[in-house]
Amino acid sequence: MFMRIDHVGIACHDLEAQIELFAGLFELTVVSREVNEEQGVKEAMLHIADGDGGGSYLQLLEPLSAESPVGRFLAKRGEGVHHVAFGVPDVTEALSALGEKGVRLLDKEPRHGSMGSSIAFLHPKDVGGMLTELVQAAGRE
Amino acid sequence: MFMRIDHVGIACHDLEAQIELFAGLFELTVVSREVNEEQGVKEAMLHIADGDGGGSYLQLLEPLSAESPVGRFLAKRGEGVHHVAFGVPDVTEALSALGEKGVRLLDKEPRHGSMGSSIAFLHPKDVGGMLTELVQAAGRE
Repeated sequence: MFMRIDHVGIACHDLEAQIELFAGLFELTVVSREVNEEQGVKEAMLHIADGDGGGSYLQLLEPLSAESPVGRFLAKRGEGVHHVAFGVPDVTEALSALGEKGVRLLDKEPRHGSMGSSIAFLHPKDVGGMLTELVQAAGRE
Repeated sequence: MFMRIDHVGIACHDLEAQIELFAGLFELTVVSREVNEEQGVKEAMLHIADGDGGGSYLQLLEPLSAESPVGRFLAKRGEGVHHVAFGVPDVTEALSALGEKGVRLLDKEPRHGSMGSSIAFLHPKDVGGMLTELVQAAGRE
C-alpha cells in the first residue's frame, strides 16, 4: 500500500524563520510554498529525495489562525511533528481498503494537498496515535 | 546532507499488538526485531521502501521500563510519533557540521542503532521541536 514516506509535517509559529532554519541546517531546497485556506495553513515543502511515485519532503506548517487544527495543535503541544504522510498509488483505493479494516477516515473523499496531490487523513486513534496522511502525487490518476 | 527519510519512530505500550496493527493495516513486513538495552527499548522495523544509501521504515518502540526515555515520553504524551530519522552518508561528518552550526548534539559520538546502523540524536529544541536522529546505514563507513 505504501510506496514511500512522502513527508513529515512540522507545525511552527513562523514559517519563514523555520524555512531558514531547516534549509540552513540540512542543506534542503524549498520546492513549493502554498496557502491552503481549506486546511488553515501556509506551508512550504523542502525536498529530501525522489522515490517511487513521488518525492520525500519536510513540510513546514504555520497556522492561518489560532482556531485552525494546526493552531490548536501548537497551543496544546508546541512546535514539532504534526503528522506523517505516506505515498500511495491510488488514494481512493487506499481509503476504501482502510475503511473496510475499520480505520476511521477524517476525509471520506480525497481533497487537495500540496503540489497538486490528492490527500486524505486517517484518525490518529486508529493508527497508533500518529495523525496519518495518504498522498497520491499529482499526475497519478 | 539528507539522503532519505530513514524512519519514523512510534512509541507504543505493546510492541506485538502494534506490529500486528501496522503490518495488517498497511501491508508492511517486519524486517528486524531488536532489544536495545542502551536505549531502553524493544523495537521492530517495518519496511516501506528502498532508498539512497538505505531503506525507509516505520519503527515501533516499546520501552523496557517506565524510567527510559520512551517510557517517560509515553507517560507524558501517550502513543504516537517519538522521533524522525534521516539517512546521511556519514554520521560523524554530519554531527560535526551540525555542531558547528550550533545544534546541540544529544550524542557527541555515533552509537549503535537498528540493523547495524550508526546513529546520533539532535536536541529537539534546536530542530523545530522534532527529536531528530541521523542514520548511517550498516556497511557505509
